[in-house]
Amino acid sequence: MITLSQRGNEMPESPIRKLVPYSEEAKRKGRTVYHLNIGQPDIETPEVALSAIKNTKVKVIEYSHSAGIESYRKGLAQYYNSKGIDVTHHDMLITTGGSEALLFAFFSCLNPGDEIIIPEPFYANYNGFACTAGVIVKPITAKIENGFALPPVSEFEKLITSKTKAILICNPNNPTGYVYSKNELETLRDIVKKYNLFLFADEVYREFCYNGKEFFSIMQLEGIEQNTVLIDSVSKRYSMCGARIGALVSRNKNIISTALKFAQARLSPPTFGQIASEAALQTPMTYFEGVTKEYVKRRNLIIEALNKMEGVICPTPQGAFYTVVRLPIDNADKFCQWLLEDFEYKNQTVMLAPATGFYSTKGSGTNEVRIAYVLNLESLKNAMECLEKALHVYPGNTLVQGLKIQSSI
Amino acid sequence: MITLSQRGNEMPESPIRKLVPYSEEAKRKGRTVYHLNIGQPDIETPEVALSAIKNTKVKVIEYSHSAGIESYRKGLAQYYNSKGIDVTHHDMLITTGGSEALLFAFFSCLNPGDEIIIPEPFYANYNGFACTAGVIVKPITAKIENGFALPPVSEFEKLITSKTKAILICNPNNPTGYVYSKNELETLRDIVKKYNLFLFADEVYREFCYNGKEFFSIMQLEGIEQNTVLIDSVSKRYSMCGARIGALVSRNKNIISTALKFAQARLSPPTFGQIASEAALQTPMTYFEGVTKEYVKRRNLIIEALNKMEGVICPTPQGAFYTVVRLPIDNADKFCQWLLEDFEYKNQTVMLAPATGFYSTKGSGTNEVRIAYVLNLESLKNAMECLEKALHVYPGNTLVQGLKIQSSI
Repeated sequence: MITLSQRGNEMPESPIRKLVPYSEEAKRKGRTVYHLNIGQPDIETPEVALSAIKNTKVKVIEYSHSAGIESYRKGLAQYYNSKGIDVTHHDMLITTGGSEALLFAFFSCLNPGDEIIIPEPFYANYNGFACTAGVIVKPITAKIENGFALPPVSEFEKLITSKTKAILICNPNNPTGYVYSKNELETLRDIVKKYNLFLFADEVYREFCYNGKEFFSIMQLEGIEQNTVLIDSVSKRYSMCGARIGALVSRNKNIISTALKFAQARLSPPTFGQIASEAALQTPMTYFEGVTKEYVKRRNLIIEALNKMEGVICPTPQGAFYTVVRLPIDNADKFCQWLLEDFEYKNQTVMLAPATGFYSTKGSGTNEVRIAYVLNLESLKNAMECLEKALHVYPGNTLVQGLKIQSSI
Repeated sequence: MITLSQRGNEMPESPIRKLVPYSEEAKRKGRTVYHLNIGQPDIETPEVALSAIKNTKVKVIEYSHSAGIESYRKGLAQYYNSKGIDVTHHDMLITTGGSEALLFAFFSCLNPGDEIIIPEPFYANYNGFACTAGVIVKPITAKIENGFALPPVSEFEKLITSKTKAILICNPNNPTGYVYSKNELETLRDIVKKYNLFLFADEVYREFCYNGKEFFSIMQLEGIEQNTVLIDSVSKRYSMCGARIGALVSRNKNIISTALKFAQARLSPPTFGQIASEAALQTPMTYFEGVTKEYVKRRNLIIEALNKMEGVICPTPQGAFYTVVRLPIDNADKFCQWLLEDFEYKNQTVMLAPATGFYSTKGSGTNEVRIAYVLNLESLKNAMECLEKALHVYPGNTLVQGLKIQSSI
């Protein structure tokens, strides 16, 4: 037998997707599965983007420039300018989703063995990208009791060693929905400056800020222009996750030229996705207004429903379309699998992402799940009803039989 | 100043794309640049693939399954079966181009520091993928004098150490156009078996075999089914490089399940590209017959033209659409840049890929270039005329002033 690599062995499964075989099985049984596990919105892609694809005059589907189609990069620079982010098309590479942008940032800036500090819970796939790049994640825990706010500076400083090279944040945050204030970001700026670190920010949920919460980008922080790298994606902004188009943006020319070498090796980002993304820049403001309104309604529905359930704790997210919820359960992985394998209510069930995969600290998040509120109100209402019923009958409910179960573990 | 990573520093530039700024400058001057540097065919994408995109009914551009759309995988399995490769849709992952398939193979099977043997000259980006994965390339030199045939077993065995984990071939070969015989592949099989290595084969040019040369896949080799990984792509087969759709195929379940973890982290391959690729499976045989005929004509034109030039050596490639040519020049990198910066003939010039980037052995390929014969006959004729004129006036021509130049280096 031939042995695979250690990194392949250590590579984590996606907590968002690892339960897919169970949901497929549930569907085969004829059950409706409400997918709250994955940030795949049901919102329609802007018509202007779809039309660009349908009306393409292309005869040969060619490679594009490795850095992306120039006219798209110029359009994207204008978009950033309109958001108060002062960059040109020379400061960016178009990537195959935000995923690739983050990988390129890791590959270009970090060596194997280098450490990166990430507030947890964090987007689970950061673990996967860190593993791919051989980078060590040093988590700093944000607490559900504080609504997942940025931990204090002193906590960061405790983690900094000679191996620390970067801090990574996601803002608005996936999975917590937390939106960092200007003040919090300036705190980060001071740490980054003091220790000469890279600051990577995944800002793919920029457009999704609620209750008048203003979005502030790391690219607007003064004094660390050479240290900041923005990770972006059209996936959520225009509800076109399958286009696989993202961007790596930095004013540090070395980062762009180094990342370009990785970009050249993989030739080019997808051509159709770029055509759709360039067209999507013309999406009318009314689209975003409508989308925001819809997400606020969805958020309010689920937050209200969740906080009414016995033993459930859920802060109100101010951005993105996720929330991390504490449930009265013994084990989130077990519970999420049980929902798909053993539970049904009116022939329906719910698929959730166990929060364990969103923490790097072992043993954290065992009674938490991430919920993506990406379905319509009717479906969300049904899903919440399902979840409530499920908690009632779940054998590992810690309210009902907590002591008995915990003592038997 | 903040320092970037060592691997970013060591990452090679693409020899195929690094001269792009010079070609852009030449075009700005109004010059026609014949692009023989890159395998971007001018052949039209099959109508059936383009129609599928234009007629899409999609309202939300969603993520697909991380392993790719199931119906496409099933169709692709049928395609392989028709080629004598006995696999099912469970034996494959759809990837973002062949590039990602190779990266996933490296990540899943090889640890940083592991060694991989690759016959050189090889597709330049293998260096980049090896650098990304921290894998050490051990080149085994195929010689232009032998038409770039597989070096003898004894040469392979000299390179094998305790660190050797894999052999990688490209068949039909990019950049040489060499097609490995069944016999040569069986030789490789014996080495792979004896030393328990992985055998990766990039077979993206499968459809491009000329003069009745029969293609034999590593997936048809018996006795090493758990060791073989096929890297594939639709880019060349259907002239749709920009779709960014490839595949990783292996009968080793561990490889598939491990690679799937890397695939899950990046969510999914591009949706539009998959739609086009699935439709492309219906491409009529006449399309391939027409394409092959056209490439044979192109190949014959350039091989004849090249071998007529003084001091030029060029074997006749049996597959793919590249050839490696020895030119009477002092330095291929200098020559290729000079062609774009300082040369023009009737306001035209030629862009070539210096072969140095296709060798891992330092100092090899300095008087060789890779030519992709991906343009129409008229353009190729003009390009060959340009090249001949260029060789006449190039200051570093070794026939004309070889000794003088060499002594001054």
